[in-house]
Amino acid sequence: VRSDMYREIHEQPEVLATILEEEWETVARAARTLRSRGFRFAMLAARGTSDNAALYAKYLFEIRLGVPVSLASPSAFTLYGSEMNLENVLMIGISQSGESKDVLEVLRRSRQLGAITLSVTNDESSSLASAADVHLWLRAGNEKSVAATKTYTAELLLLYLLIAALETSEPEPEVQQLPEQARQVLEVAWEGVERYRYANYMTVASRGYNFATAKEAALKLMETTYTVTEAFSEADLRHGPMAMIGRDFPVVLIVPPGRAYQSMDSLAKGLASRGAELAVIGEDPDLVGEAAAGFLVPVSCPEELSPILYALPAQLLAHSVAELRGLDPDSPRGLSKVTETW
Amino acid sequence: VRSDMYREIHEQPEVLATILEEEWETVARAARTLRSRGFRFAMLAARGTSDNAALYAKYLFEIRLGVPVSLASPSAFTLYGSEMNLENVLMIGISQSGESKDVLEVLRRSRQLGAITLSVTNDESSSLASAADVHLWLRAGNEKSVAATKTYTAELLLLYLLIAALETSEPEPEVQQLPEQARQVLEVAWEGVERYRYANYMTVASRGYNFATAKEAALKLMETTYTVTEAFSEADLRHGPMAMIGRDFPVVLIVPPGRAYQSMDSLAKGLASRGAELAVIGEDPDLVGEAAAGFLVPVSCPEELSPILYALPAQLLAHSVAELRGLDPDSPRGLSKVTETW
Repeated sequence: VRSDMYREIHEQPEVLATILEEEWETVARAARTLRSRGFRFAMLAARGTSDNAALYAKYLFEIRLGVPVSLASPSAFTLYGSEMNLENVLMIGISQSGESKDVLEVLRRSRQLGAITLSVTNDESSSLASAADVHLWLRAGNEKSVAATKTYTAELLLLYLLIAALETSEPEPEVQQLPEQARQVLEVAWEGVERYRYANYMTVASRGYNFATAKEAALKLMETTYTVTEAFSEADLRHGPMAMIGRDFPVVLIVPPGRAYQSMDSLAKGLASRGAELAVIGEDPDLVGEAAAGFLVPVSCPEELSPILYALPAQLLAHSVAELRGLDPDSPRGLSKVTETW
Repeated sequence: VRSDMYREIHEQPEVLATILEEEWETVARAARTLRSRGFRFAMLAARGTSDNAALYAKYLFEIRLGVPVSLASPSAFTLYGSEMNLENVLMIGISQSGESKDVLEVLRRSRQLGAITLSVTNDESSSLASAADVHLWLRAGNEKSVAATKTYTAELLLLYLLIAALETSEPEPEVQQLPEQARQVLEVAWEGVERYRYANYMTVASRGYNFATAKEAALKLMETTYTVTEAFSEADLRHGPMAMIGRDFPVVLIVPPGRAYQSMDSLAKGLASRGAELAVIGEDPDLVGEAAAGFLVPVSCPEELSPILYALPAQLLAHSVAELRGLDPDSPRGLSKVTETW
């Protein structure tokens, strides 16, 4: 019997296809509403996995739409009662369950403070869905595993479509290939994960659009394998944390082709010269082949879509290491599916 | 012979006093200029320690001024050529050396894109100082240790003063007590740090204003002791990473009085019930006394100023553990004082 997490990882091609088939019209209508209201700045409020999807959206908004984005600190609203001026601000709340109390409070307060509000949830009848001016539905089906997988890539795709709809009127044609590409990615297996059976800590690094992938990989590893895992952008890693990386230190690098490739390739060389032990998720057979562990991504897509495909090997890594350790990835100790924080 | 880092940690009361005596007029003038130009949003660009100071400023801007803040992703500008609409945006670049290439590029591009720009550096003749519309000088004196300490608290105080000047016309009177209070904090010693001699990993948590302190504590521990250390806000820790914390897991909690106290106290109890081993920096003698290691802060200040005082025990912890391990905290392996990233 495979875990719910395993099954849900493998449902992702279908979830992506459903979103592309069923949600584009809703997204396009939402974009028209948001454009007609107008906004100069966007804020995103989310926790955990959804916060990593928010980080991906930050890059898309800033690079494709030229709209500066703030990742909200919920406590500014919930603990400190901030009365921000949110006129011309788009506030997006993201929550798989739609019942995250602090995200809900941020959205409600933001609306009172003048923001136009959008929520993204996997439950159309959730509190967050009804609290927002506009709601987008993930259509990912019930997610049983505490470790979110299919709702993460559903969030990425839906946010990508939203920004495409805000920018032009049609998503780029490459997006239609994602379901089939995801299927092909899921046919590949990791090489060399057994070596992490007894690893106590790891580091994950990437850059730009895939910084979100690095953070999501780290979160999945922490949740399901209890390995202390920290994610860094390539540049942040060089500003201090690099000192801790010496001989045999396990580092996972997420290296798709694109604008971030060069600095990631240079990071890989720098880490290798320190004696660090690399695992690489990428499309460059040399880089992947030389690493101690590797996942060779068999397909290619524009860099800005790559976080959707590159999330899959990250999820599979966490799942494989959890299995190796005899841990149940569906029920991490001390966690429940809806986390209530304020 | 004590290290430069040790000496610079102990120079902080003097640096804070110098800023209060010499910089208020400049800060007030800067605030008048910024107000006359007008801004609706702020962005902060920084790396490493300065990025933690930026995080502190985010809370101050949002809570005290009601101005939404984005922490800039430099790669959006440097790698992806984002052409953000930055009219009515205040862009603040923070860099001890003033020579951080990517922060400099973000500031220059932002100015072209319509932002009003402010830089904060410890070198009046640096590139970043001359690239901005307005410059604030840290007056911290030459910082020799690669691990920044006195420039961090100088950044915090200067940013606090800036926001006070933007809000009203005078800083709160409590700020004048900081130099003497910092002196008193530095007379206290850590209890129980020897236990970290062989620790491979640690976690640091706090909330709200002191999330910045948690991140800076983690960064100092990584840089000077090579311990894998990850910082979380209390709420983020509960959304997944909590699973990795089991029996004997070392967690450092930063728990000043204030709005964040209650959730931190509840986190301390939850962690203790999982068997985690706590180190506490705080003013509550019971909470500090019950922890495996502790630093009892002997003075009290408003919560929004506490990151300035609470940074000192965080720095001392890293320094003590580095000494215990026979590591030179002034020269972490593979780092140099000015890090060049793009």
